[in-house]
Amino acid sequence: MKTRIESDSIGSLEVPEEAYYGVQTLRAKQNFPITGLRMNDCFINSLAEIKKAAAITNCEANLLDRTKADAIVKACNEILAGKWHDQFIVDPIQGGAGTSANMNANEVIANRAIEILGGKKGDYTVVHPNDHVNMSQSTNDVFPTAGKLTALMLMPKVIAQLKRLSDVLKKKGVEFNGIVKMGRTQLQDAVPIRLGQSFHAYASVVDRDIRRLEKAEGEIRAVNMGGTAVGTAINVSPSYLEHIVENLRKLSGIEIRQADDLIDATQNLDGFVAVSNALKTCAVDLSKMANDLRLLSSGPKAGIAEISLPAKQNGSSIMPGKVNPVIPEVVSQIAFNIIGNDMAITMAAEAGQMELNAFEPVLFYNLFESLTTLENGVRTFVDNCVSGITANEKRCRQLLGQSVGIATALCPYIGYRKSAEIAKLALKTGKNVEDIVLEKGLLPKQMLDNILNPMAMTRPNIRG
Amino acid sequence: MKTRIESDSIGSLEVPEEAYYGVQTLRAKQNFPITGLRMNDCFINSLAEIKKAAAITNCEANLLDRTKADAIVKACNEILAGKWHDQFIVDPIQGGAGTSANMNANEVIANRAIEILGGKKGDYTVVHPNDHVNMSQSTNDVFPTAGKLTALMLMPKVIAQLKRLSDVLKKKGVEFNGIVKMGRTQLQDAVPIRLGQSFHAYASVVDRDIRRLEKAEGEIRAVNMGGTAVGTAINVSPSYLEHIVENLRKLSGIEIRQADDLIDATQNLDGFVAVSNALKTCAVDLSKMANDLRLLSSGPKAGIAEISLPAKQNGSSIMPGKVNPVIPEVVSQIAFNIIGNDMAITMAAEAGQMELNAFEPVLFYNLFESLTTLENGVRTFVDNCVSGITANEKRCRQLLGQSVGIATALCPYIGYRKSAEIAKLALKTGKNVEDIVLEKGLLPKQMLDNILNPMAMTRPNIRG
Amino acid sequence: MKTRIESDSIGSLEVPEEAYYGVQTLRAKQNFPITGLRMNDCFINSLAEIKKAAAITNCEANLLDRTKADAIVKACNEILAGKWHDQFIVDPIQGGAGTSANMNANEVIANRAIEILGGKKGDYTVVHPNDHVNMSQSTNDVFPTAGKLTALMLMPKVIAQLKRLSDVLKKKGVEFNGIVKMGRTQLQDAVPIRLGQSFHAYASVVDRDIRRLEKAEGEIRAVNMGGTAVGTAINVSPSYLEHIVENLRKLSGIEIRQADDLIDATQNLDGFVAVSNALKTCAVDLSKMANDLRLLSSGPKAGIAEISLPAKQNGSSIMPGKVNPVIPEVVSQIAFNIIGNDMAITMAAEAGQMELNAFEPVLFYNLFESLTTLENGVRTFVDNCVSGITANEKRCRQLLGQSVGIATALCPYIGYRKSAEIAKLALKTGKNVEDIVLEKGLLPKQMLDNILNPMAMTRPNIRG
Amino acid sequence: MKTRIESDSIGSLEVPEEAYYGVQTLRAKQNFPITGLRMNDCFINSLAEIKKAAAITNCEANLLDRTKADAIVKACNEILAGKWHDQFIVDPIQGGAGTSANMNANEVIANRAIEILGGKKGDYTVVHPNDHVNMSQSTNDVFPTAGKLTALMLMPKVIAQLKRLSDVLKKKGVEFNGIVKMGRTQLQDAVPIRLGQSFHAYASVVDRDIRRLEKAEGEIRAVNMGGTAVGTAINVSPSYLEHIVENLRKLSGIEIRQADDLIDATQNLDGFVAVSNALKTCAVDLSKMANDLRLLSSGPKAGIAEISLPAKQNGSSIMPGKVNPVIPEVVSQIAFNIIGNDMAITMAAEAGQMELNAFEPVLFYNLFESLTTLENGVRTFVDNCVSGITANEKRCRQLLGQSVGIATALCPYIGYRKSAEIAKLALKTGKNVEDIVLEKGLLPKQMLDNILNPMAMTRPNIRG
Repeated sequence: MKTRIESDSIGSLEVPEEAYYGVQTLRAKQNFPITGLRMNDCFINSLAEIKKAAAITNCEANLLDRTKADAIVKACNEILAGKWHDQFIVDPIQGGAGTSANMNANEVIANRAIEILGGKKGDYTVVHPNDHVNMSQSTNDVFPTAGKLTALMLMPKVIAQLKRLSDVLKKKGVEFNGIVKMGRTQLQDAVPIRLGQSFHAYASVVDRDIRRLEKAEGEIRAVNMGGTAVGTAINVSPSYLEHIVENLRKLSGIEIRQADDLIDATQNLDGFVAVSNALKTCAVDLSKMANDLRLLSSGPKAGIAEISLPAKQNGSSIMPGKVNPVIPEVVSQIAFNIIGNDMAITMAAEAGQMELNAFEPVLFYNLFESLTTLENGVRTFVDNCVSGITANEKRCRQLLGQSVGIATALCPYIGYRKSAEIAKLALKTGKNVEDIVLEKGLLPKQMLDNILNPMAMTRPNIRG
Repeated sequence: MKTRIESDSIGSLEVPEEAYYGVQTLRAKQNFPITGLRMNDCFINSLAEIKKAAAITNCEANLLDRTKADAIVKACNEILAGKWHDQFIVDPIQGGAGTSANMNANEVIANRAIEILGGKKGDYTVVHPNDHVNMSQSTNDVFPTAGKLTALMLMPKVIAQLKRLSDVLKKKGVEFNGIVKMGRTQLQDAVPIRLGQSFHAYASVVDRDIRRLEKAEGEIRAVNMGGTAVGTAINVSPSYLEHIVENLRKLSGIEIRQADDLIDATQNLDGFVAVSNALKTCAVDLSKMANDLRLLSSGPKAGIAEISLPAKQNGSSIMPGKVNPVIPEVVSQIAFNIIGNDMAITMAAEAGQMELNAFEPVLFYNLFESLTTLENGVRTFVDNCVSGITANEKRCRQLLGQSVGIATALCPYIGYRKSAEIAKLALKTGKNVEDIVLEKGLLPKQMLDNILNPMAMTRPNIRG
Repeated sequence: MKTRIESDSIGSLEVPEEAYYGVQTLRAKQNFPITGLRMNDCFINSLAEIKKAAAITNCEANLLDRTKADAIVKACNEILAGKWHDQFIVDPIQGGAGTSANMNANEVIANRAIEILGGKKGDYTVVHPNDHVNMSQSTNDVFPTAGKLTALMLMPKVIAQLKRLSDVLKKKGVEFNGIVKMGRTQLQDAVPIRLGQSFHAYASVVDRDIRRLEKAEGEIRAVNMGGTAVGTAINVSPSYLEHIVENLRKLSGIEIRQADDLIDATQNLDGFVAVSNALKTCAVDLSKMANDLRLLSSGPKAGIAEISLPAKQNGSSIMPGKVNPVIPEVVSQIAFNIIGNDMAITMAAEAGQMELNAFEPVLFYNLFESLTTLENGVRTFVDNCVSGITANEKRCRQLLGQSVGIATALCPYIGYRKSAEIAKLALKTGKNVEDIVLEKGLLPKQMLDNILNPMAMTRPNIRG
Repeated sequence: MKTRIESDSIGSLEVPEEAYYGVQTLRAKQNFPITGLRMNDCFINSLAEIKKAAAITNCEANLLDRTKADAIVKACNEILAGKWHDQFIVDPIQGGAGTSANMNANEVIANRAIEILGGKKGDYTVVHPNDHVNMSQSTNDVFPTAGKLTALMLMPKVIAQLKRLSDVLKKKGVEFNGIVKMGRTQLQDAVPIRLGQSFHAYASVVDRDIRRLEKAEGEIRAVNMGGTAVGTAINVSPSYLEHIVENLRKLSGIEIRQADDLIDATQNLDGFVAVSNALKTCAVDLSKMANDLRLLSSGPKAGIAEISLPAKQNGSSIMPGKVNPVIPEVVSQIAFNIIGNDMAITMAAEAGQMELNAFEPVLFYNLFESLTTLENGVRTFVDNCVSGITANEKRCRQLLGQSVGIATALCPYIGYRKSAEIAKLALKTGKNVEDIVLEKGLLPKQMLDNILNPMAMTRPNIRG
């Protein structure tokens, strides 16, 4: 392998000749062989967006000459078009508060800009990673801002899938609206409910999750670009400070604004925690729903079986004909993983010290995974499960018919105590609730027919 | 002990004659000897508010006669005035989705109402716990609603303390605004910052936490009263359903509204998770701040010692003269506990099944603890720590003076590489950064004086 | 209220005249009004055990005169007999790494010893809290040691209840051994299993939890008494250092030993984390089992209903006759709480800095709660649930009979593919698996009878 | 792309002609596009080990003919040699309790065996994925067993790195044994300690973590091979049941044994939780240590700076000359991630239902990440940080000299109260502790010299 020699404050190192990254990236690669994975592509693009906006803003502020700025912008545009992502080689979990990721971007862009200007990779007199690409910036404003841009790119994708989920749940709510079944509390027979009401309720909670995620976007729109090292805007000109975020907003198309308190915005990661919170809550809701679907479709013969999930694959390597609720299962697993990620995010945010939080890399690693797996999980949930759910109306009717939960409806007429006696008697003898009431002459038949109409029980049904 | 005999579906039991609670409460007491603690007083009051509003609404709907309603209301008012709380004996961690807590309230109120009407405790023909006190209600709408009312009573107290904290931090921000000190990132000397900026940043994050908590209140204002067992409003009259929440709102003075989807509101606990999320995020921020205060006040001789915390107690049983940062320590501990509580809350919410979540009791137990300990913790943080913090200006100046972090300001003028060489040389030789630059003739003295002015470095300082 | 004046390094304070605690305790009370609760009684006793052992050891080492030592020992014995616990007034969540708890003990014991010696409370020239009661000690060895003693007192109680649980599960395993039922994987009908096998499996996992907890006791038997402030044994005589732990072991009857590395033992809390881990794992196992019991007893008409749990209380305030699985529900809630506590414990342990971990109080608060609630939860689980479980044999047979999961047994004879076709056909047509196989002439009747014998399917059943 | 048609119970699908995987794998790929990652290589190898052992055992039991068995074994050996890993395309997070992973292995091995036997991929009459490769197995014994084998392969690698860490810490303990410095509790100056003692203590806790991990290996050595679908060993011959685990043990070289209770071993995942617990505890300990190293090396001018970490990369993109504690930072981040993973693992284990836990895939995903990142993290910690740590003896002496913490040593001679007064006076006036004692004539000079010797304070130092 042909190499070039590059050096930094630590010493010299051989860098592969064809590499766009440089000595600092290479050191980081050696220092942090942790996950073996690469950084999220959106995050790489976010770094490019920032470097581009900074070059333009520096140029406008007369801090960077146009030639260099143009070359940097061009290099960034190439990255945004999907090129050179393979040159981003540092591990997503890295020490140094993201300096390695930032320098990886600085070096790749510098070397590509050097080439564009006819220079030779490694000749940083042409375009310097720190002095030019990183001009007016610090890792400490670039890295968290890139994290916010990335999350703001990924969140709408999650929300879009959740909206699809809400839509299909609502459709199912309408489709199943006429199907009365036994409602269950604490897994025990309770009172009748319409299957459509259940699916409508699922849609309601998803809608709330959507609103929560939309609000959570607002938690990370304030970025600290311009604050540089600790938020005091050292080495930054007033003009740059004034325009960098607005330029970045326009170029990226992502609605961000400059934080009012740049020092706060440099050291506190609560906005990311808030995003993770919203994801965690959504995970809780989806996992509960997924578990419900597994319960309702349990069987087919020795379970509840009030609904059927679409069969998506053989359920077993040994049990022929078995079909399992594989999609709800993967949804719960994604949920568990997101809840675990939230814990890592919480600890990372808590561990910040004074002017900086050095643990952003692991926070981003977990946050981006939560976002992408949730998007993917909801998509398959919609496509491969919820949209194909069918109701087993006959089974619903059968289970409802043999249950004694309808005795609840007697309470307003004969009191809790007597109703309880009838329910116990029905369970013990296997007799019908209606028959017992009639036998005992507690209520006239016509009135009883009204009272014990299951469909009526799914609505407010007492005349005061 | 004199007793009376009460019976329920399970059988008969001796209840202490003077007890206002009844057989169901006693069974619950025996079934759930878990924490040995009592339920939160606000929660008991919330139950009373609900029972009172229900009695009035039932009466208005001609479902409950005025005599009984008046007696129930009177009994509830006594509870709200602080009486009979000792009769609420069931453990806060209980099975049964809160039925025991609800029946404890129903029985206490029924027996007290019976007394008020001249009857004898236990004679439920006068006022019946289920048929009258619990009329038109189910544990499944009463219990979560009481949880929401309680949280809405406790949250403003937390917010009030956080506002006090924000105020005192802002005052400190002004007080310390002229004190320049070394900023630190990753615990390493970075660039100058004003101590006032640091405290202002603390206020900024607390303000965000306040807004987050205020928003979180909105997550639990929609209650499911009227939904009864599973949210279908079985055994409820349209009139009651229409008025119960509005009556409860007026009587309690707490801004609640009826949930649009009562079935969803009966089974999903995401609103509580959202409240816990906001508390968790606040805990993260406060713990980080508390840790900063411990770092900045470390020493007094072998640490940073840029600030002093007020001495609140002897620091050690063996080390004389030692004063420890005991208040920030308790703040972090409260934070760890809240983060742990959030995990329990998350698991409880996830575990809901179909029409109900049976794990609300443990959710409430954790949530109310988070709320009360946070309120208490922030109060002592303000009163016994932050308000008495003093700056050690001399020490700030001394540490700043001997640091080489100011070399950062040279970058825009002589480039990153040369600046790095100077910084290294300064560290190695112990020489002053300024002297080295002058020796090497890199910049004229007057310009250098401007560049290396620490106060100037705490603001945007580059002319483009 | 009559008071006496006491003073410390901070200043003077009025202490209630009748109080055995002193000025330092009172300051702590004012600084830390966090939970409003008192410290665990076992923990107070553990402090007394330590103070007693220290007085004796100091006396034996000629550091403390016999008169004072005897008075201290007598005071400690009174505490161990249950007296003066009301004098321990500091909050369990406290800053200062436990100094307040330790000084609370030092002051109460000193004042009681002073009284015993005929002196007047507050006259510390007779017996001094620091110089005499705390002699050769530091909070930093006393507090963690008291935590270990407490856990070692509480753990056997948990283990004893788990052994009762294992026993009753094994009995149920035998009782239900002849009952064949449908096994379920992923909530879908799988292959037959005996109900007794299921209960035996529950006993197996509980036995593993018992062993894990017994091993975990070993994690906290090494105490750091003698290490004083940072583990270097400053202000300690070699004789005291040699004998203190052995004396404490003999006096308390708890098997402890001195840590090999006292510095490590002063700053690291991993032993407590290991105990919490074992509790957390047990919680996971019990919650899974509790959920199984809820599933298996679901119904009674619209669920699985293969077993019945004993009815322990009315299940609902609105639904008459409803009986809920309240005990398994409380078990899961305890489990969620323990898992949350584990998170708080983990964070507290991680937050240690250099020579000490200042966050032990919140760790203990959570750990002791986990231990006591688990003990209580398992006791009620055994007494009020598991021991009274009955099998619904008829229901088991019915569900098994209508299921097609038995088609699995055909695979070794006719292959996976054909077996799957038969299973699908059986489900679709409602026909019997056996009939289809015979119709298709795939296997002779007698052989088929052997193959499809459900009881045979619950054992290894292929002849090679 | 050329394809072949394969079909299963769901229907037909085009599979790429050159693919070794088949229709079921492809369905899984489409159903679970979650992380976009592949399964752990060790896990793929573990599946191959199991399939190989099963083929041999089935052949020995006369259930599988030698030709097929040999072909299967050969295919497995190729996988174990690193071939065909690219054919394992299912996502590590998958629904179906691992059926997809198992079928991916069954199909790849079947198709490769078919080729070996001269057949054409897809012609499962030659070797069938279910009937032959999966013979006598179920996903429900294969998948958890593969997880255990994988963990048992990865754990020794973690332990090996921890042993290297312990060794280098002990070396540093010896190297730094003569360096006295100020010990700190609660970040406040406490009493002297030797730097060597600190590093020895770090080694002590790491040794405990090693022992804990070694014990945790014992938690997963009992495998459920032979239990098949639910642990009852359905479709298994007594001969296979007797030999499968022993054969697997010999072939893989990994010390496993058959679980006593196969039903328990099929449904409970507590062993994995126990492994994760040990990793979590290790993470806690390492993060605390990493934080200590950051504190002790803070500065270089405005911090503690008692030690220096080796400079591994430029610390900042904007601050020249800055060197950051990047390796300890990545260690803490790995720790946070492991703690988060533990939470996901805990939830997955808790969610098991009846005869199976369907959430193993996400458990494994998290567990294997914890294991590999911990191994990698400790390696870089040893190589790039701990082994190169140097002590700044002069700085240690300087900070110790100016501290008043040594006043502690006066207590046994002049009492706590007087010592406290002297400490306060020294802090206030800046005077030396020794001088004040002499001035006040409290102790003779020679005695005082002995008492205040810092090195003596690092050992038990009181003559009784």
